[in-house]
Amino acid sequence: MKASRFFIGTLKEAPADAEIVSHKLMVRAGMIRRVAGGIYNYLPIGLRSIRKVEQIVREEMNRAGAIELLMPAVQPAELWQESGRWEQYGPELLRFKDRKQSDFVMGPTHEEVVTDIARNQIKSYRQLPVNFYQVQTKFRDEIRPRFGVMRGREFIMKDAYSFDKDVDGLKLSYQKMYDAYVRIFTRLGLDFRAVVADNGSIGGSGSHEFHVIAETGEDDIAYCPSSEFAANVEATDALPLIATRGAASEALTKTSTPGAAKCEAVAELLGIPLERTIKSIVLATDNEGAEPTEPTIWLLMLRGDHSLNEIKVGKLEGLKGFRFATEAEIVEWFGTPPGYLGPLNTKKPVKVVADSTVANMSDFVVGSNEVDFHTTGVNWGRDLPEPVVADIRNVQKGDPSPDGKGVLDICRGIEVGHVFQLGTKYSEAMSATYLAENGKPAPMQMGCYGIGITRILGAAIEQNFDDKGIIWPESIAPFQVVVCPMGLDRSELVREHAERVYNELVAAGVDVILDDRGERPGVMFADWELIGVPHRLVIGDRGLKDGKIEYQGRRDTEATLLPAEEAAQTVAQKIAAALAV
Amino acid sequence: MKASRFFIGTLKEAPADAEIVSHKLMVRAGMIRRVAGGIYNYLPIGLRSIRKVEQIVREEMNRAGAIELLMPAVQPAELWQESGRWEQYGPELLRFKDRKQSDFVMGPTHEEVVTDIARNQIKSYRQLPVNFYQVQTKFRDEIRPRFGVMRGREFIMKDAYSFDKDVDGLKLSYQKMYDAYVRIFTRLGLDFRAVVADNGSIGGSGSHEFHVIAETGEDDIAYCPSSEFAANVEATDALPLIATRGAASEALTKTSTPGAAKCEAVAELLGIPLERTIKSIVLATDNEGAEPTEPTIWLLMLRGDHSLNEIKVGKLEGLKGFRFATEAEIVEWFGTPPGYLGPLNTKKPVKVVADSTVANMSDFVVGSNEVDFHTTGVNWGRDLPEPVVADIRNVQKGDPSPDGKGVLDICRGIEVGHVFQLGTKYSEAMSATYLAENGKPAPMQMGCYGIGITRILGAAIEQNFDDKGIIWPESIAPFQVVVCPMGLDRSELVREHAERVYNELVAAGVDVILDDRGERPGVMFADWELIGVPHRLVIGDRGLKDGKIEYQGRRDTEATLLPAEEAAQTVAQKIAAALAV
Repeated sequence: MKASRFFIGTLKEAPADAEIVSHKLMVRAGMIRRVAGGIYNYLPIGLRSIRKVEQIVREEMNRAGAIELLMPAVQPAELWQESGRWEQYGPELLRFKDRKQSDFVMGPTHEEVVTDIARNQIKSYRQLPVNFYQVQTKFRDEIRPRFGVMRGREFIMKDAYSFDKDVDGLKLSYQKMYDAYVRIFTRLGLDFRAVVADNGSIGGSGSHEFHVIAETGEDDIAYCPSSEFAANVEATDALPLIATRGAASEALTKTSTPGAAKCEAVAELLGIPLERTIKSIVLATDNEGAEPTEPTIWLLMLRGDHSLNEIKVGKLEGLKGFRFATEAEIVEWFGTPPGYLGPLNTKKPVKVVADSTVANMSDFVVGSNEVDFHTTGVNWGRDLPEPVVADIRNVQKGDPSPDGKGVLDICRGIEVGHVFQLGTKYSEAMSATYLAENGKPAPMQMGCYGIGITRILGAAIEQNFDDKGIIWPESIAPFQVVVCPMGLDRSELVREHAERVYNELVAAGVDVILDDRGERPGVMFADWELIGVPHRLVIGDRGLKDGKIEYQGRRDTEATLLPAEEAAQTVAQKIAAALAV
Repeated sequence: MKASRFFIGTLKEAPADAEIVSHKLMVRAGMIRRVAGGIYNYLPIGLRSIRKVEQIVREEMNRAGAIELLMPAVQPAELWQESGRWEQYGPELLRFKDRKQSDFVMGPTHEEVVTDIARNQIKSYRQLPVNFYQVQTKFRDEIRPRFGVMRGREFIMKDAYSFDKDVDGLKLSYQKMYDAYVRIFTRLGLDFRAVVADNGSIGGSGSHEFHVIAETGEDDIAYCPSSEFAANVEATDALPLIATRGAASEALTKTSTPGAAKCEAVAELLGIPLERTIKSIVLATDNEGAEPTEPTIWLLMLRGDHSLNEIKVGKLEGLKGFRFATEAEIVEWFGTPPGYLGPLNTKKPVKVVADSTVANMSDFVVGSNEVDFHTTGVNWGRDLPEPVVADIRNVQKGDPSPDGKGVLDICRGIEVGHVFQLGTKYSEAMSATYLAENGKPAPMQMGCYGIGITRILGAAIEQNFDDKGIIWPESIAPFQVVVCPMGLDRSELVREHAERVYNELVAAGVDVILDDRGERPGVMFADWELIGVPHRLVIGDRGLKDGKIEYQGRRDTEATLLPAEEAAQTVAQKIAAALAV
């Protein structure tokens, strides 16, 4: 490609609505332009990277035996009524009427449509397994679209749906997709991690998220550097940090702790480690019945340095649908407002749940249910009845890995892919059955597998940028090399070498752009650094008189000189090496 | 591709709602499946052909210097309000509200969005010309979606938009697109014609439609086999068929023509050629004003074998917005109901317009304004005042070509492409200006250029089918060759040769499918003939014992035997020859 025949729309300034670096850089690099909230034009440079992501995804999906088709963006409400999601799905599901007042939705996902295909097309076990995928434009009416392509409303996804005879087949299909995703993100050149995920609203059991690791990620991931373990922090089991409870050695003592409403302040005031203090969290569950009754009040006890995992709590017996207690309830049950709460001497009975670490603590510190007072030397059995014990906290750095193979670390990630075992949720709701070997109809076992194509661009940038702009991996850079001639209009020698190098790179299958716009070097360099082209060749009379062309990798701090005749080949080799996975 | 890893969903019967052959065959071949009215799933076989059309379109658009980008399906109402089309566009424009009650549309076309891009991105004449295109999914809320992909609601289009400094630039950009379209449809292997079009609601001046020629086409095209002339019948000038009016030779005679209310019946009854009779058509125009007044009644006179061209009539002075007269009006003005109308002795004055052929007729026959009577020997000047003369008829086969280079023929076509000179319609409405060389802002001159990607599939089938199914051109066939092994499970020899031939074809870059499903020959052949694969190789023990493989082209009535070792090469050469344009 020659720049004079291309469209380059770089900007000096990012728009005011761009909060994160990838959004800013994508607008500045001329990749996207806002049309409405969460709706973008993909300008030529942006589209080139999208197409490269799509191509890699397609190649790996095909390699894994998935078959491409294309489903519509506009879907009839009937299918969503059949699955039950017409009612269940929130306002993110854009519902509208056509000119005949029939109900439709803009598809945010395609479980219903693909299940309809399967039930119509698949009659016999002989047709299974099958895995259909598409690369398609979706719409999700986010209440607060932002972060550019990271949380847009209209976006491009690859979604795949597998159909199997039985759970064993589903597990095999799932594993194939898992393996394909590993290859995809590896080929994309991204630092990523497959993590065990807690299942969302889509239902079913067994799922992994694929995260691009980036400091700016919105999800916390727990992983074990010495093993394969990785999971969303929310979904990671927290093991007890104390193997056996120690014997009580201190007397129960009410201690003045003026103004120390937080564990950190208590520890400092008393000169003890934070790990000796207890955080008290008060929850409520409302009891159903004809007559209004009092709620049940729960006291959840965590070690002072730990944080509550609400998802784990919601799965405990009696705590499904819990809420945080109101201040009035706290005063009524504990006799004091929040800040100095504890399990001792409550005004009305509360149900105590101790985190599995807390359950093995001894001589610990709790609030006295009196403003400005804590009680030290508290011990289970002696001062308090044995509690209900459960894992109710988030893991943190340094915790033992649940697989027993080391110690956890925490990183932040951006979810770019998700593989799900759906089971028969949709096939049962929509009667997608096949005739099994035994001649009887059975519901198909389904899996679904998504990759956010446009989101990947944002995630790749969040992981790879500097103060000059984007730093693309070779696999998805809009161009892999830029050839920048110095004084193209003055020097016949420069023109000749630029054309030669350009043609050699094209012949080598390299995606190269020749910047023949006639811009000043400073403008050229700034544009291509902003756009993030990973390799740059600068061709000028000064170098050429010594037979040299200047090369600089986007991450290099300095340029190096290459023999002019070898420049194209050298760069082509660098790219081939980067793409080899 | 091996059929066992692919999805083939052929059907014996077409669905009841399929009216035309392409719709029936696309469903039966497993290319499309209905999701809702005018909304389809593109199954794997259908998607393959779509992608091939897209690829050819992209290559030729890129070759012509157009730059690909991607605009959203969902567009904010504001842009359509700016252009004025929010009000002007009919209910085909699907309007809806998002969760925040903001107005949006599902884009049926992208003039507004691309003009918004241009006004934001293009500041100077130095950035012009530029031509942006996309391949994108559109939605048009047709009141009566039907004919499968021919008149769907959700469909894939390539739309391009050129921006130029001035009209000369626009004409150049237009010509480049015209030439690109000729290359595209030639490469697609379709019999097509570029025709001069009457402009539709999109506005501007200067446009051509590209039609695929097919008997089932919905548009009538007039063309001159001995010249380049081609135009929609509606837009073709009808030259007078009589150069000079002959002298009157008959006396004006009222003649009994009982029951002969049509010209054909009159001609037969009187034993004269149809070309001597006159068809009288009564139109009305309503006069505006504060007081309701009588309409103006018009009598349009056509030769008995000619048909009225309403578009031409609507452009005549005084006839803009005409309507057909009511029967009551006809009785009031002519003294008789329709059937025996004529210009002589009307009860109230009417405005007479004679077609340019009628104006040169002599001794002709008109209705007498009395049931069961006609008047023969009618002559202008002698019996009637000289009329207003205009071209008000459709051309027909045998008419002189407007370019003076021969005689017209008529064929039917399916519109698959359209090139338009928009001028400044959108750039003025939306203030898309650039700074010209003289330092002053000027509106950009725009052109727009569409190709119906999914529609092309239907049109190609309407042009290429037989009673067995589709007959694809090599360029867009879902597969170019099918290899059908006979008894794959029984014969190691067949298996070896099938694999060898398959691998040789793959190596030659041929898009081949090996039917390894283990179906009976009859089922295999019927499937691939229905799907329309243009080349078939049948590999069986019987042929192999003589060193032969059976070849049959999809249009061949019989198979021929090829030397087994040369079969792949021979077919690859046939395909290469077919694709060479």
